[in-house]
Amino acid sequence: MKATQFFVSTLKEAPADAEVVSHKLMMRAGMIKRLGAGIYNYMPMGLRVIRKVEKIIREEMDAAGAVECLMPVIQPAELWQETGRFDKMGPELLRVKDRHGRDFIVQPTSEEVITDIARQELRSYRQLPKNFYHIQTKFRDERRPRFGLMRGREFTMKDAYSFDRDKDAAGRSYDNMYAAYCKIFDRFGLQYRAVAADTGAIGGDRSHEFQVIAETGEDAIVYCPTSDYAANIELAEGVALLPARGEALQAQAKTPTPGKSTCEEVALLLGLPLAQTVKSLVLATDELDKDGNIVKTQVWLLLVRGDHELNEVKAGKVEGLKGGFRFATVGEIVDHFGCKPGYLGPIGLKKPVKIVADRTVAVMSDFICGANEVDFHFTGVNWGRDLPEPDLVADIRNVVAGDPSPDGKGLLAIQRGIEVGHVFYLGTKYSKAMNATFLDENGKPALMEMGCYGIGVTRILGAAIEQNHDARGIIWPDAIAPFTVVICPIGADRSADVKAAADKLYEELKALGVDVLLDDRGERPGAMFADWELIGVPHRVVLGDRGLKEGQVEYQGRRDDAATKLGVNDVVGHLKGLLKL
Amino acid sequence: MKATQFFVSTLKEAPADAEVVSHKLMMRAGMIKRLGAGIYNYMPMGLRVIRKVEKIIREEMDAAGAVECLMPVIQPAELWQETGRFDKMGPELLRVKDRHGRDFIVQPTSEEVITDIARQELRSYRQLPKNFYHIQTKFRDERRPRFGLMRGREFTMKDAYSFDRDKDAAGRSYDNMYAAYCKIFDRFGLQYRAVAADTGAIGGDRSHEFQVIAETGEDAIVYCPTSDYAANIELAEGVALLPARGEALQAQAKTPTPGKSTCEEVALLLGLPLAQTVKSLVLATDELDKDGNIVKTQVWLLLVRGDHELNEVKAGKVEGLKGGFRFATVGEIVDHFGCKPGYLGPIGLKKPVKIVADRTVAVMSDFICGANEVDFHFTGVNWGRDLPEPDLVADIRNVVAGDPSPDGKGLLAIQRGIEVGHVFYLGTKYSKAMNATFLDENGKPALMEMGCYGIGVTRILGAAIEQNHDARGIIWPDAIAPFTVVICPIGADRSADVKAAADKLYEELKALGVDVLLDDRGERPGAMFADWELIGVPHRVVLGDRGLKEGQVEYQGRRDDAATKLGVNDVVGHLKGLLKL
Repeated sequence: MKATQFFVSTLKEAPADAEVVSHKLMMRAGMIKRLGAGIYNYMPMGLRVIRKVEKIIREEMDAAGAVECLMPVIQPAELWQETGRFDKMGPELLRVKDRHGRDFIVQPTSEEVITDIARQELRSYRQLPKNFYHIQTKFRDERRPRFGLMRGREFTMKDAYSFDRDKDAAGRSYDNMYAAYCKIFDRFGLQYRAVAADTGAIGGDRSHEFQVIAETGEDAIVYCPTSDYAANIELAEGVALLPARGEALQAQAKTPTPGKSTCEEVALLLGLPLAQTVKSLVLATDELDKDGNIVKTQVWLLLVRGDHELNEVKAGKVEGLKGGFRFATVGEIVDHFGCKPGYLGPIGLKKPVKIVADRTVAVMSDFICGANEVDFHFTGVNWGRDLPEPDLVADIRNVVAGDPSPDGKGLLAIQRGIEVGHVFYLGTKYSKAMNATFLDENGKPALMEMGCYGIGVTRILGAAIEQNHDARGIIWPDAIAPFTVVICPIGADRSADVKAAADKLYEELKALGVDVLLDDRGERPGAMFADWELIGVPHRVVLGDRGLKEGQVEYQGRRDDAATKLGVNDVVGHLKGLLKL
Repeated sequence: MKATQFFVSTLKEAPADAEVVSHKLMMRAGMIKRLGAGIYNYMPMGLRVIRKVEKIIREEMDAAGAVECLMPVIQPAELWQETGRFDKMGPELLRVKDRHGRDFIVQPTSEEVITDIARQELRSYRQLPKNFYHIQTKFRDERRPRFGLMRGREFTMKDAYSFDRDKDAAGRSYDNMYAAYCKIFDRFGLQYRAVAADTGAIGGDRSHEFQVIAETGEDAIVYCPTSDYAANIELAEGVALLPARGEALQAQAKTPTPGKSTCEEVALLLGLPLAQTVKSLVLATDELDKDGNIVKTQVWLLLVRGDHELNEVKAGKVEGLKGGFRFATVGEIVDHFGCKPGYLGPIGLKKPVKIVADRTVAVMSDFICGANEVDFHFTGVNWGRDLPEPDLVADIRNVVAGDPSPDGKGLLAIQRGIEVGHVFYLGTKYSKAMNATFLDENGKPALMEMGCYGIGVTRILGAAIEQNHDARGIIWPDAIAPFTVVICPIGADRSADVKAAADKLYEELKALGVDVLLDDRGERPGAMFADWELIGVPHRVVLGDRGLKEGQVEYQGRRDDAATKLGVNDVVGHLKGLLKL
């Protein structure tokens, strides 16, 4: 490609509404252009990256035996009503009526449509397993779209759906996709981690997120550097941080802590470690009658160590909280604890409260907690002696770096990540709702076991940039760069030699199948270099009159501090080596 | 590709709602699957064709210097309000509100968005010309979606938009796209014709439709076999079919024609040629006040020869009718002609009527027309003698086969066609509405001259099949077939030789880059052949045990009546010849 045949449009400054670095750099590099909130035009420079991402995904999905199809953007509401998601999904689902007043949705994903296809097309166990995928425009009407392509409303996703005869076969389909995803992300040239994730109501351990590592990532990912344990923070198991409960050495004492309502403040005031304090969180669950009126409310006290944080996903798995919970109101708290928040604790309750202790809290001794009296805490509190054993002991906290790995093989570390892929075992959730059955070996109808597998195509661009950039701009991995090599001739309008050498190099690289761009815009060197460093082309060759007189050109990798002089006849060989051609 | 790794799903019968052959065959071949009215899943077999169509388009658009981008499916209403199309477009435009109640549309085309991009990005004449295109999902909420992909609601279109500094440059961009379209349609391997089309309010002669020739086509395309004249029926110029008006030889006579209200019936009754009769069509134009109330109505009488048909597009170009017209009501007709429809004519009017004669009618003599009295016609009518010369003479009829070509180089012929592409000079219609200017050489802002260029990607599939099919199924041209070659081994489960020979041929063809499918499903020969003939793979190689023992395989082109025996070692060479490899 020659630059004058293409469209290069860079900005010195990012627009004010661009918050994160990938958004800023994509806007400045002319890769995307805002059309509306969370809706972007993919400009030629950005589209090239998208196409390369799509190509890698397609090749590896095909190699893994998945079959590509294409399901419509606009889908009839009926199928979404069959699974109940038409109502359940809330305002994120964009609903639209056609000229006849019939309901449609703009697809955010395609479980319903693919299950509809499967129940018509896959009639016999002989046709299974089958895995269909498509790469299609999606729309999710996010309440607060932001971060450019990281949380857009309209975006491109690859979603695949597997259909199997039983759980074992579904497990093999899952493993197959997991392996394909590893190949895909390896080929992207991004640092990533596959982490176990929560399966919610589906259950089981068959859910992994593919996270691109980036300091700016929204997700915390937990891993053990000395084993293969990896999970997202929602799932990562927190173990008790003491092997067993210590003996009670102190007497329980009510201690004034005037105005100190947080564990940090109390520990500081008392000169005791924060790890000796216990934090109280009050939840409530409501029992409803068939009309949705509250007939009974249960208040819960969840206790985590003062330096720990409650993990709401884990709390939601505690028996009694599975049906959903809310934080208690101040009124409910005062009613049950006789005290306003800030000084709450498990001792001296006014009304019955269910107490759930985190695994670590359950083995603490001589601990500090609120006294249910403003400006007072108890110290030297011990289970069994000063209060009954907790009703339940559970893993309800976020792990922290340095915790023992639950596999016992080291200590946990935490990184930030950006979720760009997800493999998920769905079981019969959709096949049951939509009666998607096949005839098994005995001629009996059986529900198909399903899995779904997504990759956020456009989000990959944002994640790649969050991971790979510097003060000058983007640094694309070779595999997904808009162009792999850029040739920058200096003064080609004045020097026929420069022009001829640039053209020759361009043709040679093209003939080798290299995705090369010749910058024939006639820009000055400074502007030209700034553009390509901003855009992030990984390999640059500069040809100038003076160098050529000495038979030399300059090569610079996007991550290199300085250029390397190469013989004009050596540059192709050098690039072949770098690009492994 | 091996069939077991792919998804082959054929039907013996087409669903009842499939009306045209392409729709029936695509459904039966498992290429598309209906999701809703005018909304289809593109199944793997159909998607392969779409991808090949897209690839050809992309290659030729790129070669012509157009640059690919991707504009969103969901577009904010604001831009559509700028051009007025948000209101003007009517129910075909799918409108949707987001969670905040803001208006959006699902794009039917992208003039507004690309013009918005251009007015921001193209600031100087130095950046022009520029041509952006995208291949994107479109939605048009057709009142009556039908014919499968021929008139769907959701479909894929390639739309390109050129921006130029002046009309001459815009003309060059237009010519460039016209040439690229010819290459694209040549590469598809379809019989097509580029025909001049009406430019409506834009004016000028810069509009061509690319029509795929098919007997079942909805459009009539007019061409001169002995020159390069070609136009669609709306535009094709009708010349006067007589060199000059003949002398009046007959006297005007009122002739009883009881119950004969059509020209055909009258000619038959009187034993005179239909070409001697004149047909009367009554239109009306309304003058409105600023509140939209009718303040004045003008009645028009349009006269075409009895064997001709009124062309409403041409009528709309007549001075006085340009602002829009309607057919007159019976009340208006009786009021002006003193007679109900069926016996109308230009003589003896009750109230003033503007008379427009077609070019041929204007030179007729001794003609027959209605007498404005039920059951009577006039014969021997002559302009000037029996009635005044017409107020206007214009080309207002459809041409018919055998008419002289307007270029004077032969006689016109008419074919049926399916419109699959359109190139159109837009002028400043959108740039003016949206104030898309650039700075010219003198630093003055000037409006960009635009053109738009569409290809109905998914419609190509329907058109290709309408043109290329037989009783057994589809006959794809090589370039857009889902697979180019299918290998059908017979009894591969019983014969290791057959399996080995099929696998070897498969690998050899794959290595040559041939898009080959090996049917390893183990189907019986009859079912296997029927499937691939229905699906329309253009080249088939059958390997059987008996043939292989004699060193032979069977080749059959999809259009061939019978198979050809080839030496097992010659088949690759034979295919290389056929596929020009």
